[in-house]
Parts: sequence; structure tokens; C-alpha cells
Amino acid sequence: MRVSRRPRTLGTTGIPMMHRNQGHAMTTSQQQLPEGARYCADTFNGAIASAALSAAWEIGLLDELDQRRRLDIAEFAEQRDAHPHTVRAILIALSSRRIVSLDPERETAETDVGFDDAFRARAFFYWLTRGCGELLTTLPVKVVNSLRQGGFVRRDARAISVACRNITQTFFDPPLRDMIDSLELGTVADLGCGGGERLLMLAALKPEARLIGVDMSTSAITVAREAVREAGVQDRVTLTQDDFVTMGPRPEYAKVDTVTCFLMGHDLWPRQDCVRTLRRLRTVFPNVRNLILGDTCRSTGLDGPEHPLFTLGFETVHSVMGQLLPTIDEWSTAIEEGGWRIADRHLLDVPAFSFIDRLTPA
Amino acid sequence: MRVSRRPRTLGTTGIPMMHRNQGHAMTTSQQQLPEGARYCADTFNGAIASAALSAAWEIGLLDELDQRRRLDIAEFAEQRDAHPHTVRAILIALSSRRIVSLDPERETAETDVGFDDAFRARAFFYWLTRGCGELLTTLPVKVVNSLRQGGFVRRDARAISVACRNITQTFFDPPLRDMIDSLELGTVADLGCGGGERLLMLAALKPEARLIGVDMSTSAITVAREAVREAGVQDRVTLTQDDFVTMGPRPEYAKVDTVTCFLMGHDLWPRQDCVRTLRRLRTVFPNVRNLILGDTCRSTGLDGPEHPLFTLGFETVHSVMGQLLPTIDEWSTAIEEGGWRIADRHLLDVPAFSFIDRLTPA
Repeated sequence: MRVSRRPRTLGTTGIPMMHRNQGHAMTTSQQQLPEGARYCADTFNGAIASAALSAAWEIGLLDELDQRRRLDIAEFAEQRDAHPHTVRAILIALSSRRIVSLDPERETAETDVGFDDAFRARAFFYWLTRGCGELLTTLPVKVVNSLRQGGFVRRDARAISVACRNITQTFFDPPLRDMIDSLELGTVADLGCGGGERLLMLAALKPEARLIGVDMSTSAITVAREAVREAGVQDRVTLTQDDFVTMGPRPEYAKVDTVTCFLMGHDLWPRQDCVRTLRRLRTVFPNVRNLILGDTCRSTGLDGPEHPLFTLGFETVHSVMGQLLPTIDEWSTAIEEGGWRIADRHLLDVPAFSFIDRLTPA
Repeated sequence: MRVSRRPRTLGTTGIPMMHRNQGHAMTTSQQQLPEGARYCADTFNGAIASAALSAAWEIGLLDELDQRRRLDIAEFAEQRDAHPHTVRAILIALSSRRIVSLDPERETAETDVGFDDAFRARAFFYWLTRGCGELLTTLPVKVVNSLRQGGFVRRDARAISVACRNITQTFFDPPLRDMIDSLELGTVADLGCGGGERLLMLAALKPEARLIGVDMSTSAITVAREAVREAGVQDRVTLTQDDFVTMGPRPEYAKVDTVTCFLMGHDLWPRQDCVRTLRRLRTVFPNVRNLILGDTCRSTGLDGPEHPLFTLGFETVHSVMGQLLPTIDEWSTAIEEGGWRIADRHLLDVPAFSFIDRLTPA
């Protein structure tokens, strides 16, 4: 047998060095791979690892690893009626980013150095792959003006809702708790209350407060009502179906002193619409003292590979949907023109370019 | 206004350093970002850049950049009736991997240090995102045994065909040309000839050879027939619809001295099926002297982030489809048991774990 390979020199077996590496050591192939090729491979493998991380969360693999730090692939597959080769493929993809490591026979996986960061950030990957996967796959079609009509973007509303709930609870709720800790709350209205998670957090944090959950979706209200009843706080929490872009005054809104609104503010834009809604909120809630607004805004000053987690995805998806996100500076001037004053501003590192503002009537 | 942010210290403006970076310099944020967080962000951004690269090829953006090295976003969008914000979003995603760089106003893009590698590898990204995107998005569903029935994997056959054609021409054809350069060819049968690209390459390379294209798809045969007619080589090229897994002897096959078969060999497995087909090829082609086989096989000895381009994607997709790929060693023993001898073996760096074998009857 004659074996050739260019430009690399072969070992004496005829099988190149690359195919014979074992174990965890830095390999010949990696050392030899030119930087550009390494970068290409990382980008490609990032797409697979992102999908694997998203899937691993949905099938319970991430939670199992978080709790037990180690799992047997065959055992996990049997317990869940899962296809073991696909479970293994997911774990191998995760191992390509050191989220887990596998034994040489690839029968067991355990958490590796990247696990904790990836676990904490799991909802961003879920948002991207499971929530916006169709948009990424069909991106070339979304470019064509003549096809950009009606509901041309299909996102998975369930996955996005699951992801946003986790992102809110992990990254926005702790600083929100700090911010309202020192405030006296009488009646709070949570705009876009969804399944009621924030209402329950506020109810637990401020036992004296009364709460009104507002959402335009009937199914969200149904879910929230059940959550409120299960938590046993139905005497302090009211739920109202209403659209906060078009909502008008109601008797129960007159008592509200604090309004909260998270991860929805960017839907108020373009600017003049945002200013108009901010102004009207003061009429809708005539006795409001605080409007607490949390959101992620458009990045500025980023270049090349320095993009932090989420920003690039969030902005790509909104660009494709034709929705230009405001920057933090654009928010600041719209808030002022909308009749509010920024009393507190808390900036978040993850997700980057996110803020929690406490606004008071100007 | 009170501005807070933990754990980072703020600049005097109240807007953290991260939001104020300009230009190409390494930024404060990047320097401060912990390694795990940086790795997470790279993985996430890799998914977006992969989709962007794939889309950029399909909409003609990559070819324009390859030819002119620079483009004006508004001008490109107008010429193609494309949505400029989506074109810009694609270019920003590419800039996150230094494939292009944008001017500060984000009106023009030019090729950057990563362009040439990414351009050369574009078909792998297209295969992954456009060809296998649905599989990645719905990966958690593919794990469930009870749902793994019938055509549970939907791949985009057109995109995969486009990608494989480019991969073949870029990476497999040059070493194939070298390998057959010194061979005397009488009649060559190309199994799985597709649209006829390899037939035309062989026709140009060996003006004395007669060629038979074999494919199981009628539409492939139709496309190949048109290509052969356009190239004016119809007097030397015959096209036959036949499935090389079940094919039997035919009078025209008796003249064949060389058989070529590229990127299809892994479909012959599991092992016993592969051995049986290899054996039968000698009966089908009684006068064969060379069987030239090119394919990508399962990686061995890889660990963690050292995975080169393609391998991880190719193996993930085949694991999900329930198809175990053979390793190079498994190929070697199957070839021997199938009645052939490896005369030449050429190994490829990209795609890694790929080979072109020239087999002779044992």
C-alpha cells in the first residue's frame, strides 16, 4: 500500500499523526492547524455545540449533570426512552467546548471546566437554537424583499417564553430585588406579566404589597391565575387582560404606585411610539411613583470577536424581523421626552447592554 | 441619576467601559471577560456566524466579496432587491469572526483576515446550516425513541447536493486528478455521478477514456445528460440509471476497467453490507482493474476542542440518523474482506479523516 498526504509528513504507519492522538494532551493536529483553519473549525463546531447545549437542557441532560456531575449514557437513555447514539452525539458536541468530558470508551460523561458557565447561560442557547432556529436556517430567504410579507419569520413562541423566563430569573431578578428592597410598595402593576413569575417573586419579597398582573395573552393570564392560586396569594394578586401599548385608565389602576415592565420595552419602539406610550402610562396610572423598566438594548462600540454573549443573536434576529433596537442613549432621551426621570440605572454584564431603570415622573 | 453595576467599576460617565469602546483595539470588556464567559460567547456567536456564512454564500455576498474584496451594503441590497438591515446583520455576524470588517458607520464591508479560509470552507457551513438546520433546531425531538420513525429527519436535499458538489470539487478533485494522472483509463464508470461534474472532469483529463455515469436518481441523470451535451462530450459519455447497492451485470459494464465512487461509500455500511457490495462490484465489473473510492470516515482519537472542521457535524448528523460511520481502520479490513487490495491511499486534511483509496482486485 502506498499512502500519500500533502503537505504533512506521515508517520511510519501510514496513518497520519492526527488520527492517532489519544487522551487530553494538546495534539499534533491542533498545533499544526493554521490559525485561520482553527478559527473556521471553532465557528463550525460552535454551531453544533450551541444546538447540543439547547437540546441537552430540553431533554434533562443538563439538569442531571448539574445535580450529579456525572452520568452513564446507556442508563440515562434507558430511563428516558432516548436514542443512546443521539445522546452520545450531544455529549460529544458538548465535549468539543469542554462543557463535559467523556471517558475514552464514550460511555460516561462528567462536567468539565466549561460546565458552570454554559449551564448558567443555557437559556440564551435555547432562545437561539430552539426559539430562532428556523430563522437561522432560512436566513437567505429572509433577505429577499418580495418574500418579507406577513408572518415571514417563524419563531418557536414556547421555546422563547421558556428561555426568557429563565433569563429573567437568573439575570434580571437579583438586581431587581436589590433595587426594590428599599422602596415602599403599595400597589404594583406588572406589565407583560406572562405566567406570573415576577408577581410571585414580588409577593414573597413585599408581603404588604398588592399586585396587578397585566398581559395581553389570555393563555398567559390563565397560567398566571393557576400559579397565583397555587402560591396561595390570590387575595393580594389581581390579573387583568390588557395591552400595555393601547391600555386606558381603569379604577384598579388608580391605586398603582409602582409599575414594572421587563424585556418588553423594545417592542414599544420606534421612538415616537415609545415616547407616546411612556407619556400615556402616567395617565393610565395617575398615582405612579416608580416605573421600573428592564430590557436589553442595541450594542454600541463593539467590533470583531469582542461581541459578548447574546448581543449578536438578539440584534441579528431583530434586524431580520425589521425591528431596529434602541441603544441605551436612545432610551435615555426617549425616557426624558416621555415625561420621566431616571432615578436609578443598573447595568448588567450578562446579558450585556441590558439595564434596569427606576423612573420617576419628571 | 444613580447608576450601579456590579462587580465592575464604572467610568465617570456612568456608562461602563464596555459600551464606550471604539475601533479595532482590544477592548476593556474583552480583557475583563472571564475565560469561561468568553468561551460561551464564542460558541453562541459561532452559531450565528455559521448561519451568516451559509446565507452569505446563497445570496451572492461571498462571491461578490471574493471578487471585489469590498462592497457597499446599500448598493448590494438595491441590486438584489434585498433587505439592507438583514444584509448588514449578516455582515456584522461575519465580522464577529473577522471574515469581514465593517466601517464604523457600517455602510461598507471588506474582506478581513479570516475571509479566505472561510470562503474556501463555505460549503461545510452550507451543508450544516442550510442542509441540516432542521435537524439541529429539533435535536431534542430526535432523541425520543418513539418519535424516531419513518422520515423523522428532514434535510434539505438541494442544499446538501450543492454543498457536496463544492466540497468534492475543492477538496477531493485535485488529489483525485493527481492519482489518476498516471493511470491508463479505457472505460470508467462513476457510481453516484449526480449532475455529472466528475464525468466532465475525467473527460477533460483523459481524452482517450470512455465514461459511464451511474446514478439511481432520474433527475440527476437528466441534469448530467444536459451537462454532458453542453460540454460536447456526448460521444464518449453514457448515462445509466442504476442503484449501485443492487446493480447487476450489463453488457456496457463488461468494458469498464476503472470505477470511481465518491462520498457515497459510508452509505454501504453496516460492515457486512459493505463487504457484500464490494464483492459484487467485481462481478458487475468483471474487467475492473481500479476502484477509486473517496469518502469521509469516523474520527478517532479526538478529544475536546481539537475537533477539526466538519468531523463533529458529519458525525452528529449521522448519529442522529442512526447511521454509524466506519473508521479508516474499519474501511481497511472491510476492503480486504471484500476482495480488494489498497494500492494507493491518499489522506486529506480538509475535510479531516477523509481518504481517496485506489483499490485493485485482490
